[in-house]
Amino acid sequence: MSFLESLRWRYATKRMNGKKVPDEKVEIILEAARLAPSGGGLQPFNILVVKNPELLKKIQPIANNQPQITEASHLLIFAAWDDINDKHIDKVFDLINKERNHTVDAQDAYKNKLKGMFAAKTQEERFQIAARQTYIALGIAIAAAAVEEVDATPMEGFNNTELDKFLGLKEKGLRSVTLLTLGYRDLVNDKLVHLKKVRRPKEELVIELD
Amino acid sequence: MSFLESLRWRYATKRMNGKKVPDEKVEIILEAARLAPSGGGLQPFNILVVKNPELLKKIQPIANNQPQITEASHLLIFAAWDDINDKHIDKVFDLINKERNHTVDAQDAYKNKLKGMFAAKTQEERFQIAARQTYIALGIAIAAAAVEEVDATPMEGFNNTELDKFLGLKEKGLRSVTLLTLGYRDLVNDKLVHLKKVRRPKEELVIELD
Repeated sequence: MSFLESLRWRYATKRMNGKKVPDEKVEIILEAARLAPSGGGLQPFNILVVKNPELLKKIQPIANNQPQITEASHLLIFAAWDDINDKHIDKVFDLINKERNHTVDAQDAYKNKLKGMFAAKTQEERFQIAARQTYIALGIAIAAAAVEEVDATPMEGFNNTELDKFLGLKEKGLRSVTLLTLGYRDLVNDKLVHLKKVRRPKEELVIELD
Repeated sequence: MSFLESLRWRYATKRMNGKKVPDEKVEIILEAARLAPSGGGLQPFNILVVKNPELLKKIQPIANNQPQITEASHLLIFAAWDDINDKHIDKVFDLINKERNHTVDAQDAYKNKLKGMFAAKTQEERFQIAARQTYIALGIAIAAAAVEEVDATPMEGFNNTELDKFLGLKEKGLRSVTLLTLGYRDLVNDKLVHLKKVRRPKEELVIELD
């Protein structure tokens, strides 16, 4: 399948058949998300992976009892940093300098510019920026799953506050922003399987400026 | 190249060589963004395409004079709806019902739930939700460009208010959230070409829960 064919093949699977997604495919999807670009290269998020059926069963009521939570084999929880501070920024640039064998901090000016930019914002604004970056990785993970012919359902319909509390995310400096279930479509019970994919037409979505 | 190899090949290109990206490749990238999933299927954004060199020159100072704005052949401006209202939601569901030949509004309950959910939020909160969906499409567009071996640089470093004013986006009910330049890397002048790609290690980014 071409990349576009993969994107047309995928859909927001509501019912999955319980079949396990092989570990190597999950690794590819996570690696794609890890390679996603982010503003300032900060990657201000974590991805939590749940595959324990007992744990999935406990998460299900927090996510409107949606069936794919337990019919999937893996649940990815995309959680953004609840803040972006100087310590975070220093850590990222330390890594860059180490990996690129910079003997001096070659990007000091850029680093300080970033720090100043974030310091001028409120914590909530910084969190919103972190959340947006998380969605770039989500998009790329969804694409990777489609390429691997793994069904992936992005879900915002869950109680973020309750999930954060249940998983102790606040203590980790995180706030859950979106879920992604990984599994395989249930061809018998998912009514969506046979429905036409609908998207806003290109003429409406894309505006050519001249 | 495998999908992961494509993602490793790409980087945030700072200098481009002015070579034109063929129209068919731009179409693939836009189509990938159009196929991106979004909360409630609303696709609450537009993508503005600029390729006129004169217009790109005028946009450049609004984007910190970054060279890739004029060295790229296409600039995509991802702009989120500044609000999500009942009219927007009705329009999307009308399209779904039409495309799927539903004689009655099969998704009435879901549509009304969505309306209620958005009505309970402030306009700014609704815009933030729209912005996040925009980033899913951005992520998938970035991936599509990599697959097509087109260099794509996502950029948040621009004056959103000024760009919205310059392009009259407010009158269109839009707010710019991110830019994506499309072109080809300048192998001589882009110092980033030869630098190692740095990402947070998997052990730090991914948390396995059990």
